[in-house]
Amino acid sequence: MASYREAGVDIDAGIRAVDLIRDHVRSTYRAEVLAGVGPFGAMFALGQYRQPVLVSSADGVGTKLKIAFLLDKHDTVGRDLVCHSVNDILTAGAQPLFFLDYFATGKLRPETTAEVVKGLAEACRELGCALIGGEAAEMPGLYQAGEYDLAGFIVGVVEKDEIVDGSRIQVGDVLLGLPSSGLHTNGFSLARRVFGLDVGTPEEARRRLSQHYSELGHTLGEELLIPHRPYLKELRPLLPQVKGMAHITGGGLLDNVPRMLPAGTAALIRRRSWSVPPIFRLIQERGRIAADEMYRVFNMGIGMVLAVAADEAEAIRQALPGSLPIGEVIASSERQVVFG
Amino acid sequence: MASYREAGVDIDAGIRAVDLIRDHVRSTYRAEVLAGVGPFGAMFALGQYRQPVLVSSADGVGTKLKIAFLLDKHDTVGRDLVCHSVNDILTAGAQPLFFLDYFATGKLRPETTAEVVKGLAEACRELGCALIGGEAAEMPGLYQAGEYDLAGFIVGVVEKDEIVDGSRIQVGDVLLGLPSSGLHTNGFSLARRVFGLDVGTPEEARRRLSQHYSELGHTLGEELLIPHRPYLKELRPLLPQVKGMAHITGGGLLDNVPRMLPAGTAALIRRRSWSVPPIFRLIQERGRIAADEMYRVFNMGIGMVLAVAADEAEAIRQALPGSLPIGEVIASSERQVVFG
Repeated sequence: MASYREAGVDIDAGIRAVDLIRDHVRSTYRAEVLAGVGPFGAMFALGQYRQPVLVSSADGVGTKLKIAFLLDKHDTVGRDLVCHSVNDILTAGAQPLFFLDYFATGKLRPETTAEVVKGLAEACRELGCALIGGEAAEMPGLYQAGEYDLAGFIVGVVEKDEIVDGSRIQVGDVLLGLPSSGLHTNGFSLARRVFGLDVGTPEEARRRLSQHYSELGHTLGEELLIPHRPYLKELRPLLPQVKGMAHITGGGLLDNVPRMLPAGTAALIRRRSWSVPPIFRLIQERGRIAADEMYRVFNMGIGMVLAVAADEAEAIRQALPGSLPIGEVIASSERQVVFG
Repeated sequence: MASYREAGVDIDAGIRAVDLIRDHVRSTYRAEVLAGVGPFGAMFALGQYRQPVLVSSADGVGTKLKIAFLLDKHDTVGRDLVCHSVNDILTAGAQPLFFLDYFATGKLRPETTAEVVKGLAEACRELGCALIGGEAAEMPGLYQAGEYDLAGFIVGVVEKDEIVDGSRIQVGDVLLGLPSSGLHTNGFSLARRVFGLDVGTPEEARRRLSQHYSELGHTLGEELLIPHRPYLKELRPLLPQVKGMAHITGGGLLDNVPRMLPAGTAALIRRRSWSVPPIFRLIQERGRIAADEMYRVFNMGIGMVLAVAADEAEAIRQALPGSLPIGEVIASSERQVVFG
């Protein structure tokens, strides 16, 4: 007699996973979460807004997951995902409301799932975002043993007349760069290639990840798993003064900064205005990667770029520890980044 | 010199995919979609509600995807995902607002991605749901060649005082069953095992899928890829009369019907009140599967169960083509399904 369990789907493991994550998830709830109502869909009472605009984003962690698999460390990738998502909607001036995750694996290991959700929940709680639902899918044959994929969906809100959309950006505005904490969640396929993590045995890859680099001050594995940095708390009080924001994700400064610019402008970015962190120099040297490619794949130490009025730039810079003026808005027929 | 492309990430393929899907996606937009604003997050202006409650759900397609891979047919799985999601939030009485997808693969094939998104967009358009954003992730080494995962995230809205939550259900209410179109998106790991689709070569699996079954009236592959049926349009005008809804997904009637029941009640379901479709009988016979296991894994021909007042049941049944009274609410110390 065939059964679901024999076919590779273990409903009991799913139930154990739910037991393990319940408290983590509940710790993120806000008053607006109508818990215990509507078991097939999560419920969030919106509250009072004049003209609410819902801002949403879907994202994954990408092949940073492969580093977590190798090190069997699963409590940071959830934080990566939440911070990436919160930053994405922050660029519009939105405050996070709630988050849902999608966790898919070949064979559900309840303890691994619980570690992942713990990371999601901690970051959600810190950023005031309710982890309101999710799906843990067991798909025999689609994922390799011990591997999983993790995606997330965020919904935030902004009043329509407070949307930050870059339309007020003008020539002469200053570009402020906020420091990243490391690679964040982009460029991992290239980084893995450069350090030989995508070939050979898992043992060889783990040996490479455990190597200590004096310029990093810790091991390669520790460096690569540093979580994505969120910018919500420091930027929230300054949003009325911010004209545009670019989250430096896949495509780097080159692709992302132009996304906030109005027609007729470009971004002049002075590459010598900040110090590129050691991990990026290490990757560039070991991979003998062209500078342009580096700036298109990696954030190079800048996780978020703000456009602000020139006469407000210094006050805003002082309110944002670690931020630096990295360039300015110039007139241009093409929306692009020009390095100076 | 290493490059991102050499490491397996083809940014140009991503751009081609976006070109191919743009028109499909735009065809789903509603007036509330603030297009062209906020490139890092999708924007949806909520409009006027008294006490809006946002109802959301995250879901995947599961191993039904494996059938699509074998048949190289990618325009139905998106419909599965959207319909599953719309049904999930419908159980709370919510109308869909917008949808985001997460598509992850090892090597991006723009044409395959476009087929998947075409299916998503068609179903979104039919159900009045804006396909407002998504992520197409290329993750070398995580997925096998030609394979992908697909997840989706829906947000809908319901007025707080119109939430359908089962609380008004009482002993004597009638349970109406709405017909499913087939397996919908649950039980595929077991179905694949029963038909030997999870072993042997892809050619052997394709041969099995191409076999014509007289009791089905078409091939096994055609049967297994029939899309999940949505119930929104037929149920929308009846929502004020519906006391509770259960979407029959993973866990079948046994696990899902109790989710809508208030304490002190159970569902008496008469299995002989509807005719189980041939695909389920075929699976049960070939796999020699116990009846209880069948009813816990598959929908057995019932995709949605409604609880309605006994004196309104006949009028509602007539307004819902194909629906049947399949049981009633009884007094019980345990929320459960009792088969009669």
